[in-house]
Amino acid sequence: MTPLDHLRVVLVSTRNPLNIGAAARAMSNFGFTRLRVVAPYDTAFREARSAVGAPELLRNAEEFSTIADSVSDCSLVIGTTAVRTRELLHPLKRLEEGAPLIREHLQTGKAALLFGSEKRGLSNNDLSHCHWLMRIPTADANISMNLGQAVAVCLYELIRANPPAEGAPAPVSATAESLERMTAALFEGMAASGYVKRGSEAASLEKARRLVRRMALNPEDAETWTGAFAKMALALQRNRRNNEGG
Amino acid sequence: MTPLDHLRVVLVSTRNPLNIGAAARAMSNFGFTRLRVVAPYDTAFREARSAVGAPELLRNAEEFSTIADSVSDCSLVIGTTAVRTRELLHPLKRLEEGAPLIREHLQTGKAALLFGSEKRGLSNNDLSHCHWLMRIPTADANISMNLGQAVAVCLYELIRANPPAEGAPAPVSATAESLERMTAALFEGMAASGYVKRGSEAASLEKARRLVRRMALNPEDAETWTGAFAKMALALQRNRRNNEGG
Repeated sequence: MTPLDHLRVVLVSTRNPLNIGAAARAMSNFGFTRLRVVAPYDTAFREARSAVGAPELLRNAEEFSTIADSVSDCSLVIGTTAVRTRELLHPLKRLEEGAPLIREHLQTGKAALLFGSEKRGLSNNDLSHCHWLMRIPTADANISMNLGQAVAVCLYELIRANPPAEGAPAPVSATAESLERMTAALFEGMAASGYVKRGSEAASLEKARRLVRRMALNPEDAETWTGAFAKMALALQRNRRNNEGG
Repeated sequence: MTPLDHLRVVLVSTRNPLNIGAAARAMSNFGFTRLRVVAPYDTAFREARSAVGAPELLRNAEEFSTIADSVSDCSLVIGTTAVRTRELLHPLKRLEEGAPLIREHLQTGKAALLFGSEKRGLSNNDLSHCHWLMRIPTADANISMNLGQAVAVCLYELIRANPPAEGAPAPVSATAESLERMTAALFEGMAASGYVKRGSEAASLEKARRLVRRMALNPEDAETWTGAFAKMALALQRNRRNNEGG
């Protein structure tokens, strides 16, 4: 296991098998091994996998139906985006600035790098699973990159020769799975208290997810918060039942 | 005219029209404008040029029958190669090391960056037109990159921000006052839910305060959390009074 094996390249809802193949090829060029696909278009994944000369890492690619499952073992989740205005909801870093942080994280923990579909990129709901977002510094006149090329550029920057970053060792972060448990507990508490307006459940869940991801939690704090939220949610739900029963 | 207009991206004997299109797209993504093709395979160039949505820079691409003609106006000619042993005939630089030299040259003069065919790369005869060679630092296990991806990675390195990014302005943090309001709301919710054990109020309040401080919150998120906690606390306290009253 090398640090590069700690990165999961996650392709979300990819439509074109050629792009899955191109992503796999770039991974192999730069020494990465773990490819994951989430809800790929029907035939895209099958075709890419069975293409003549498909590399081993493509045959070993894992398929998931949700983003939550695909990143559950990762303690850092990064979404790629071409759009600049997303920074309103998430911290947005340029590739040159974000890659060193990912590289440092890979020394001790697992990280997921998400790429959205060719048409739409990552949705706000997809992005709500991310700790922060990263963009390739494209020209304003044409910000939208081909998927396979975007993967290649990001992975190149990750292995690029850089002056050794001094600084403290990377802090250990909570896994996506535990953050998702915490998000669920928070959302239940919010819902049971009346904070969530009827009809806005999905938006509120996204909001809760983003709030939690922005906290940069260590595993212990994530457990503590989850415990506190679960207790509040339980008490609120019990009271609500009592009131309805009475 | 910007320095980027001084670069000619030269595709030599390209076979696949998709790769010509991909090279053009990467150029457009990174702000380059001058594409040249040398002896492309019969239909490749025609097809790429007439593809739906072909960008202007592809329609304006110039076709040459020899490398000598394609680089005649350039005062620096660089060949790209995956092969390491070529260094026997030419100086070979890693991309990170070569790109700054090209960038510097573009300030005052024209430069050509040559990419060979998908199958064979650049021949020794092609390379004889070059001042030096450049290679992308690929993994030994798979040194051969897809043409469109190789163009994207090279052009990215040419426009990459190099001086140590002085970085984004420091994020704005929530004031201590607003964190303390948030802490109070959290503590009230914890207490009303039964999470705080009798006799451990002071210790729990401290714990809540530490948890909140470790979140590194911005002012907006602090307000959101405070609102959610206050709502939960209020609902819990109201229920508790109802239960005690009943």
